[in-house]
Amino acid sequence: MYHFRNDYSQGAHPRVLDALVRTNLESTAGYGEDEYCQAAASMVKARFQCPDADIHFLVGGTQTNFTAITAFLRPWEAAVAVDTGHIAVHETGAVEARGHKVITVPHEEGKMTPSALRKVYEEHTCCNWNHLVLPKLLYLSDSTELGTIYTKEELKALSETCRELNMYLYLDGARLASALTAPGNDIAPEDLPGYCDAFTIGGTKNGLLFGECLVITNPALTENFRFCLKQCGAMLAKGRLLGVQFSALLEEDLWLQLGRHANRLAQRLTQGLVEKGYALYAHSPTNQLFPILPKEKIEELKRSFTFEFIAPVDESYDAVRFVTAWGSTDEAVDALLEAL
Amino acid sequence: MYHFRNDYSQGAHPRVLDALVRTNLESTAGYGEDEYCQAAASMVKARFQCPDADIHFLVGGTQTNFTAITAFLRPWEAAVAVDTGHIAVHETGAVEARGHKVITVPHEEGKMTPSALRKVYEEHTCCNWNHLVLPKLLYLSDSTELGTIYTKEELKALSETCRELNMYLYLDGARLASALTAPGNDIAPEDLPGYCDAFTIGGTKNGLLFGECLVITNPALTENFRFCLKQCGAMLAKGRLLGVQFSALLEEDLWLQLGRHANRLAQRLTQGLVEKGYALYAHSPTNQLFPILPKEKIEELKRSFTFEFIAPVDESYDAVRFVTAWGSTDEAVDALLEAL
Amino acid sequence: MYHFRNDYSQGAHPRVLDALVRTNLESTAGYGEDEYCQAAASMVKARFQCPDADIHFLVGGTQTNFTAITAFLRPWEAAVAVDTGHIAVHETGAVEARGHKVITVPHEEGKMTPSALRKVYEEHTCCNWNHLVLPKLLYLSDSTELGTIYTKEELKALSETCRELNMYLYLDGARLASALTAPGNDIAPEDLPGYCDAFTIGGTKNGLLFGECLVITNPALTENFRFCLKQCGAMLAKGRLLGVQFSALLEEDLWLQLGRHANRLAQRLTQGLVEKGYALYAHSPTNQLFPILPKEKIEELKRSFTFEFIAPVDESYDAVRFVTAWGSTDEAVDALLEAL
Amino acid sequence: MYHFRNDYSQGAHPRVLDALVRTNLESTAGYGEDEYCQAAASMVKARFQCPDADIHFLVGGTQTNFTAITAFLRPWEAAVAVDTGHIAVHETGAVEARGHKVITVPHEEGKMTPSALRKVYEEHTCCNWNHLVLPKLLYLSDSTELGTIYTKEELKALSETCRELNMYLYLDGARLASALTAPGNDIAPEDLPGYCDAFTIGGTKNGLLFGECLVITNPALTENFRFCLKQCGAMLAKGRLLGVQFSALLEEDLWLQLGRHANRLAQRLTQGLVEKGYALYAHSPTNQLFPILPKEKIEELKRSFTFEFIAPVDESYDAVRFVTAWGSTDEAVDALLEAL
Repeated sequence: MYHFRNDYSQGAHPRVLDALVRTNLESTAGYGEDEYCQAAASMVKARFQCPDADIHFLVGGTQTNFTAITAFLRPWEAAVAVDTGHIAVHETGAVEARGHKVITVPHEEGKMTPSALRKVYEEHTCCNWNHLVLPKLLYLSDSTELGTIYTKEELKALSETCRELNMYLYLDGARLASALTAPGNDIAPEDLPGYCDAFTIGGTKNGLLFGECLVITNPALTENFRFCLKQCGAMLAKGRLLGVQFSALLEEDLWLQLGRHANRLAQRLTQGLVEKGYALYAHSPTNQLFPILPKEKIEELKRSFTFEFIAPVDESYDAVRFVTAWGSTDEAVDALLEAL
Repeated sequence: MYHFRNDYSQGAHPRVLDALVRTNLESTAGYGEDEYCQAAASMVKARFQCPDADIHFLVGGTQTNFTAITAFLRPWEAAVAVDTGHIAVHETGAVEARGHKVITVPHEEGKMTPSALRKVYEEHTCCNWNHLVLPKLLYLSDSTELGTIYTKEELKALSETCRELNMYLYLDGARLASALTAPGNDIAPEDLPGYCDAFTIGGTKNGLLFGECLVITNPALTENFRFCLKQCGAMLAKGRLLGVQFSALLEEDLWLQLGRHANRLAQRLTQGLVEKGYALYAHSPTNQLFPILPKEKIEELKRSFTFEFIAPVDESYDAVRFVTAWGSTDEAVDALLEAL
Repeated sequence: MYHFRNDYSQGAHPRVLDALVRTNLESTAGYGEDEYCQAAASMVKARFQCPDADIHFLVGGTQTNFTAITAFLRPWEAAVAVDTGHIAVHETGAVEARGHKVITVPHEEGKMTPSALRKVYEEHTCCNWNHLVLPKLLYLSDSTELGTIYTKEELKALSETCRELNMYLYLDGARLASALTAPGNDIAPEDLPGYCDAFTIGGTKNGLLFGECLVITNPALTENFRFCLKQCGAMLAKGRLLGVQFSALLEEDLWLQLGRHANRLAQRLTQGLVEKGYALYAHSPTNQLFPILPKEKIEELKRSFTFEFIAPVDESYDAVRFVTAWGSTDEAVDALLEAL
Repeated sequence: MYHFRNDYSQGAHPRVLDALVRTNLESTAGYGEDEYCQAAASMVKARFQCPDADIHFLVGGTQTNFTAITAFLRPWEAAVAVDTGHIAVHETGAVEARGHKVITVPHEEGKMTPSALRKVYEEHTCCNWNHLVLPKLLYLSDSTELGTIYTKEELKALSETCRELNMYLYLDGARLASALTAPGNDIAPEDLPGYCDAFTIGGTKNGLLFGECLVITNPALTENFRFCLKQCGAMLAKGRLLGVQFSALLEEDLWLQLGRHANRLAQRLTQGLVEKGYALYAHSPTNQLFPILPKEKIEELKRSFTFEFIAPVDESYDAVRFVTAWGSTDEAVDALLEAL
């Protein structure tokens, strides 16, 4: 069986696991107040050139998103996301469960545009003021749920729009490494602090056992954040496990190496799919592919490959998702290309 | 100045006010546990032919909606509404503030359809089960936010779809009297208990100082409801004020008389608008009208009439809203028709 | 039957009701944005000498408390109250339902002391910082749930402690008029803005049909409050009803006249009880009395008087509560004294 | 430096870590739907003799507590705990943040008694029904926050009281292994399903990198629990990490071996403390000790040992906490005994 189901089906990259094994019997302070977390935070600040940022390490993506949004917003303030946004669809209403509406707008290839943001903001604030929620935080993901990425120009425009509208920009980087190493990407890690009020660096989908790093660059959003972390169940007792893993991931830019590897395999697959004449449900330069395949072909592939169903297309075709990861191999891609 | 701003700009209908004045110095038990509330509840049960229903009297519409939904749903369950639905737009995220997502679907003339409901239900339950919220309650309003009404056939179809999908049907009747007395309506009060798990009878917009009656007909939803009422700030200390008012409103079907009056004036206005060649933003047989008027005409009308801006249409035209109420007069309608 | 059950068993004081009747057919803007609410707000600002305060009119006490606390606190911040405090006991967890812990400390005759406040603050902040909630708001009521009142010196000391601890002082004045007119009171209305960050002026228990006035004097707490009002279901559609009523209540200090009347009758009762040798469960100078009576006497009284059971004392005695109100009469007090 | 700070300062027990390393590169389904979680669930069911229980694996203790309570309670229902209970004090109001009051009663050596439970239940339900929250879930921890344990008789009595009062019994077993292997314990693992509606088996403090197992034995509480898991951020992407770890911990009852080890060292320490004449703040037979030490001695010990301050006792003495764990050594205990 070859696995293209997702990018979190294996354990940790060997260098990450080694770091955990090596430090296993040390005794440190709990709850992220240890030297490993400090060191990892320093590495993040250096790599992203944000020496004054507030850095927190959390376990999972849904947890990170709702904890941050809970801390950042007042009760009547809302997040804005595209209708495919992870917080809008795939987190079982975790943001609403903490009291905040997620306003959605139609996506364009998985992405938000300044005009869509401005439109929804104006609809909420033009009249009947205070009978509608106040849009206050823009939720983006890069790469998006459709595998697409933002250009620097696009991110800059959204950031400027947010500032003009007095909104925060929060970027969910669950697949940030894949985005930043994708063909066509022109955003550098050190660009993010300037454009975002907060962003995350995903570890779970890029070689860690688990772990997301939250970088808060807007100083107005940092006060008492650790209270919220604890209240949301997001303060890991053995917090150093996150520091140890992120240090290993940042060392020699392993995170970007792994992102690049996954992207390369995905691009090989994409090229093969296109050559064979298959249509694509979305045009992704990153590690998630969304081909449209004949239903019989899908049944046939299931015998030797794991992957996900995404959406029905017509009577004969469905869209599916293949995901490559840090642990995917050329051999698996060869096998899939042959079978397609 | 003539008022077409809304249907809650005056105090109470004289018969309602008289009842309050007449009973003012009586001493009764508080919190709705008095004889007046009991009497009003009996009148509701008789009028709507639901002898076993659980009847509660609340102060306002937003309060009623979020209190009911809070009591009915578990944390991961969501309400479904059209995108113009009151809970989806004009209640400052009150439902989300109590933890529940409001899933929206595009409206058809302000209304929900069985196919739209089924589609959104299936999208949420087909796969990735438990990463998405569980659609559990259908929110309808009759009349809708665009003044349109459901036919019996439409309501029946939605009710059957809800039962099939194991969802509750909650009908917001903030303007129920206007809906049930509108030209084209074929729903009788006594039809509602059979189609709905809960519905409300609006008083605020139909001649009370304030007050909404919540009728819970699904016995699975009634247990401990008064705890929720108190917790949501919806248990009025002098609860009998609601019982006294609703008794007066139900007596000799005053509520339907008032609805009919408002509708008649609105239809006179509609007819005049159409005769003068104005287009309508929505086709409403009830007491809210949405004509599209030239901007200069709007400016001119503002000098003598109150009404609301609804939406921009194009460079020269805007959509506005005229609302008639129990206290509106033929004289005011004549004046407006003349000015149009 | 004579009624000593509570201070909200009748309707409105005649002057309040007259004002409602007189203005009933006027058309005004909704949601508290009318001239009557503006006028009443001006009267409040003048009477309490707080020209820059933010004034809001709400329907009920529980609603006012949780709406204010929801707006004032961040998710990890808590309210502190005595263990008899209304928000701690009798509001069905409304504050917790909005996400905030209510920390309780033992009361002293229904009252909070600076040392108890300081102790609980220090216990929460001395160590293990951010694993405990952050005490941020002191909830007081005056008069208290046991009918007792704060002296100016006591309130000043609590206010200074709050400032030192960076906490807000919120005073629930559901029975403020009774407190400010009680024997022994030395607090003037115009003292409150200096000591409190926010306080309420109760109308429901002092001659209105319903209504609480929230006065926010700390400018850091006012931004966007009306969003919270709407979200909490506390924005009355016919908001002017609150403005009309409060204007009538403030005119010629009717509110204080009514408080004084209720207190005078209560003091007559207390004197009689003491003369007859009954013990008191709490020493209240205000309109709530808590005598300890023989169980047979209680049964006997029930035939002609309404009142509430409070707590068992021993095999032969129970504590009960008699409440006088603006509408109570000397005749009723005479009857009760005779029956005791 | 010798560590007695807590039982989560090291990584994982070697057998647990080995299992993670051994399975690291396997590809499995995510979100706990893999074979390792299934196998671990089967081992739990067999060991605790609850073949029909619903088993879930979560990351941390605070997360497990609030997720379970969120799923089990309706909005107006409350948890009851002793005033030292973990959910009442050390989880930053996580239960309240999800809307539920935690009612506290004074502890007896860290424990709840049936009479205290019954008293608080009756106070909440005797009168004024539905103005108070409804006590619905008893929160216990075994061992308690003071290191004490429940006897079978005590647990049985609490369980019977809960059933009589129609309340759930939830037992937080963050330190369950230490409790079940303590001198004086007469509760067997297989006793718990009969007494509890749900209980947890702590892994974080007993040799796992992280992980708590939630066992729901009341079938009325299991429906749709995984929705709540996801919504609360408690569904780990690489869920199998929990299955792998718990399998290793349950194999050959490693969990009890580790609990026994920690207890033995703690008892050696206790004996030494008593022999040296030190008083104890609480009498714990488990792995947490609470000696009262002279302040100078505390300062002296800090140079070579890590441990926690608990509470001031008087001018000369403070209470501190020493914790032993699966990784503690006789050598460290010898060193501490010598230094005392």
